[in-house]
Amino acid sequence: MQDYRAPIEDMRFVLTELAGLDRISTLAGYEDATPDLVDAILEEAAKLAGNVLSPINQSGDLQKARFENGVVRTPDGFAGAYRQFVDGGWNALPFDPEYGGQGLPWLVAAPLTEMWNSANMAFALCPLLTQGAVELLQTHGSKSQKDQYLAKLIAGEWTGTMNLTEPQAGTDVGAVKTRAQPEGDHYRITGQKIYITYGEHDFTDNIIHMVLARTPGAPAGPKGISLFVVPKFLLDENGSPAKHNDLRCVSIEHKLGINGSPTCVMAYGDHEGAVGYLIGEENRGLEYMFTMMNNARLTVGIQGIAIAERAYQQARAFAFERVQSKEIDKPGGGAAAIIKHPDVRRMLASMKCQVEAARAIAYRASAELDLAKRAPEENARQGHQVDGIDLLTPLVKAWSTDLGVEIASTGVQVHGGMGFIEETGAAQHYRDARITPIYEGTNGVQALDLVGRKILRYKGETARRFCARVIDETAALKGSENVTATARSVGEATKILEQATDWLVETGSRDLRKAAASATPYLRLFATVAGGWQMAIAAARAESKLANSDGDPVFMAAKVKTAAFYADTVLPQCSGLMVSATKGADSTLAFTDEEL
Amino acid sequence: MQDYRAPIEDMRFVLTELAGLDRISTLAGYEDATPDLVDAILEEAAKLAGNVLSPINQSGDLQKARFENGVVRTPDGFAGAYRQFVDGGWNALPFDPEYGGQGLPWLVAAPLTEMWNSANMAFALCPLLTQGAVELLQTHGSKSQKDQYLAKLIAGEWTGTMNLTEPQAGTDVGAVKTRAQPEGDHYRITGQKIYITYGEHDFTDNIIHMVLARTPGAPAGPKGISLFVVPKFLLDENGSPAKHNDLRCVSIEHKLGINGSPTCVMAYGDHEGAVGYLIGEENRGLEYMFTMMNNARLTVGIQGIAIAERAYQQARAFAFERVQSKEIDKPGGGAAAIIKHPDVRRMLASMKCQVEAARAIAYRASAELDLAKRAPEENARQGHQVDGIDLLTPLVKAWSTDLGVEIASTGVQVHGGMGFIEETGAAQHYRDARITPIYEGTNGVQALDLVGRKILRYKGETARRFCARVIDETAALKGSENVTATARSVGEATKILEQATDWLVETGSRDLRKAAASATPYLRLFATVAGGWQMAIAAARAESKLANSDGDPVFMAAKVKTAAFYADTVLPQCSGLMVSATKGADSTLAFTDEEL
Repeated sequence: MQDYRAPIEDMRFVLTELAGLDRISTLAGYEDATPDLVDAILEEAAKLAGNVLSPINQSGDLQKARFENGVVRTPDGFAGAYRQFVDGGWNALPFDPEYGGQGLPWLVAAPLTEMWNSANMAFALCPLLTQGAVELLQTHGSKSQKDQYLAKLIAGEWTGTMNLTEPQAGTDVGAVKTRAQPEGDHYRITGQKIYITYGEHDFTDNIIHMVLARTPGAPAGPKGISLFVVPKFLLDENGSPAKHNDLRCVSIEHKLGINGSPTCVMAYGDHEGAVGYLIGEENRGLEYMFTMMNNARLTVGIQGIAIAERAYQQARAFAFERVQSKEIDKPGGGAAAIIKHPDVRRMLASMKCQVEAARAIAYRASAELDLAKRAPEENARQGHQVDGIDLLTPLVKAWSTDLGVEIASTGVQVHGGMGFIEETGAAQHYRDARITPIYEGTNGVQALDLVGRKILRYKGETARRFCARVIDETAALKGSENVTATARSVGEATKILEQATDWLVETGSRDLRKAAASATPYLRLFATVAGGWQMAIAAARAESKLANSDGDPVFMAAKVKTAAFYADTVLPQCSGLMVSATKGADSTLAFTDEEL
Repeated sequence: MQDYRAPIEDMRFVLTELAGLDRISTLAGYEDATPDLVDAILEEAAKLAGNVLSPINQSGDLQKARFENGVVRTPDGFAGAYRQFVDGGWNALPFDPEYGGQGLPWLVAAPLTEMWNSANMAFALCPLLTQGAVELLQTHGSKSQKDQYLAKLIAGEWTGTMNLTEPQAGTDVGAVKTRAQPEGDHYRITGQKIYITYGEHDFTDNIIHMVLARTPGAPAGPKGISLFVVPKFLLDENGSPAKHNDLRCVSIEHKLGINGSPTCVMAYGDHEGAVGYLIGEENRGLEYMFTMMNNARLTVGIQGIAIAERAYQQARAFAFERVQSKEIDKPGGGAAAIIKHPDVRRMLASMKCQVEAARAIAYRASAELDLAKRAPEENARQGHQVDGIDLLTPLVKAWSTDLGVEIASTGVQVHGGMGFIEETGAAQHYRDARITPIYEGTNGVQALDLVGRKILRYKGETARRFCARVIDETAALKGSENVTATARSVGEATKILEQATDWLVETGSRDLRKAAASATPYLRLFATVAGGWQMAIAAARAESKLANSDGDPVFMAAKVKTAAFYADTVLPQCSGLMVSATKGADSTLAFTDEEL
């Protein structure tokens, strides 16, 4: 497997030229996030990712997390890497300084999340889950719960998990059956949870489980679910782990990928019931969970980008090394590195342009999250929430992860036969990537979320404002014909998105099933336009910087060409996606069950 | 893993309604291939596939082929299944009756190939390679070589292998370095070969290796390669395996998929040199190999369809069983099987329509192969060769295998979290499918073959005749608005293909690099149109049969709707593919190496 080198140059370009780091660093509490500090953070993180996490990615996949006599053993090197990760303070980065966090913007967390997941997604899942637990406790925990758990979780001394899924309750979390019986100041939790990432491991001396369960007499369905904090070891009066709670890992799954990470079946309450403490109020568990889940969706989208970037680096390195066949227009020449073959160039350009477009949208979404939380005016915060983070989250989650799978597949293809041999490393990305369109809400669920909660709920106004903005911004771009042609292509694609939106709003008002049948191609259309928007702006900025001898000229020239390649090969899909969304919805629903 | 049931109804429909089985059975030597006999063959084969090969597919993947103390052990049950396979005469089906073959058309072999590979691709690779060896010996072997090896290979008592690849010689087979030193009536072979499928196994008491090597003083490159037959055990005067030849399996690969099949590194000539017998003349080895390779490409295309069909069956069964969430327009209802959710229906319809379109093209190509060999007139044979099998082979190989990967990925997605758990079985298809776009000429090579040897060589006339035929045939289709709308969509897509072809011919005449950069999207465009052509005809035939109460009404109604779904969601990609092929070629070639 090729070593990972963080694409710091593109990350920095996106942060400063596209996602507005300068503006984010004017927000109250984010004043420290100056370009210089952010540069230093990126460089340090790149070292950890490249030198510590990446080297144990393939060995971790091969060795896998194991379950032996009731104990989960992570692969060699994972526990030590975790120690370095938390000792470096990386776990604490975006969290509340009151509990030891570093209070940096989500925008700065985004490239780091990308680095950890490019370097070693199986490893990076552990802090990702802790992050969710921290957010839940920060937002909804009582003062005493925060005091007991937050500092330890933020420091990474303990880790957190999310216990939602049960065999009958996946997408439909409302079907959770795990029970919580009140008993004094706590509850007794009984039930089985599945797909619990790092539900058990050997990194830390406590694990704090966030568990969804039902109290007696709670309403049926999603409105009868409560959220509990259930530590593996109950804390003594000093806040130290003491008695083992009545919970255990029953087994771990044999998975397609992310094999270094344990995915646990967890049993709560084999004996007297696991002690759990209610977070917030009864029956509001799902509502709380969703405050965390949106960030988690953004993070999973970044995982898709991370794997795609890693697959791209691997394929690129191979294409420069592997010598095979003559160049097509040099029959008298010798065998060339395969980078010289046009179809290999096409594959690499396709990987590169989509990674960069998806990265730009994901970081932009992270900036919107910061603005939605901290913009000075309530109106502005609301705008960044509805038109920014809410709208972009399903795009980032679904599009980036679909691309992750597609790009990892192209990465295998670039390697030819060696891509199919596990030793090469390309195949691991193809396996690892495949979970990302599934977890944290399948991409089908993301598409329904986009269509239902983000578009139809506002009668299409959010999407129309988005389109108007893209049309305005791209029309205003100045530059060479290369740049303006890209901008024009984006403008044309945006008009298609406007038409699709009109159709969707009209259709959704009378036929929800049809709107649902259109949701996936509609999301892909929307995201493709959004990616084009950012790439067009990127091209204009890069060309301008090139003219001013500002920055690496190869990088800047490549950016302009990458945007043009996107305009010529990705944006043209929009007209077909429009037909798939509209006419395709009818032909989807025409089938009876038995005809499918 | 879901059991496999051969889709006999669709296979029969394609054979009789689309691929012209009636015509094939009028060809000299194929008179026995009557519909009744073919039906009986399909039904018997379906039993073997469903009851014998399919049940050991997942266990074979889990157990894997192993290499122990120099011996390759196939997974439990494989050797026994192989015995049943050859005892049933299945290995002999399309071969020369003179040596024990059954002399059935390739068109009839196509659905059987699909069945074996749907049921168990890792197993099916063994007879697939034997088939290649038989074709080589049938076409190019001497009388005594045929007498020695053919009957045994056709019966399946021995198996065959293809030894082309070496570490430096993959796509560029001309770079082969293995040496062949003449010695009396034979040669001594020395060298290492990699990626040798079933290079060693425990099915039979001999293995007949077909090996590419260079004789002393042979010209450099592809024109200096000769083909040798190199048996694992040299034959004694009775033709029985006797002395072990100087060749061995050095190791087997750890692969992403098809784990039940051993992929061997083979060493020839560790000691005195392996005894090999020249096939045909020196330096014509690659030319001979290509006569076999075209059929192998067709077969690999069918593998793509086979995995896609299996993934579809698996996803469909899951969608009917898995209960999760309410129907979107029934908020007061209970949880429904996920088949009721529009996005799941969309995924299944997408899998189904592309499997059926790809199957139609692949079987049609097989019929063209029969016609190219046996049509009564030389002119007709030539026409079926150039406009039929030559043109369709790269489409079948590349498109079907790209679809195989995409559809297997969708199959995982339909399963949600369970799709990522290996026990479910969906993930195996995703892993197994990934080799098919790579071996037997990567799909990039297929696209170059299409553009260079099949289109530009004829100044586009082959493609223009194809387009004219599709436009005529679809314009002539009669039926309801549903059918004629599908036909119209195909006609419009075909006009796009005509334009792309004009561009390609014009461009290719002056810029081979640019033509090469356009090859992959051009191939996808071509294949998408070809699939639409067959689906439109299928819809018209099915509607007519429905009106005449001929055949299963559910199947016929589904076929019409499946074609409409294809027209509404797959054909609309053509306009974007046209832009990708044309403008995209420029933007691909704009990058310098360091900018990629």
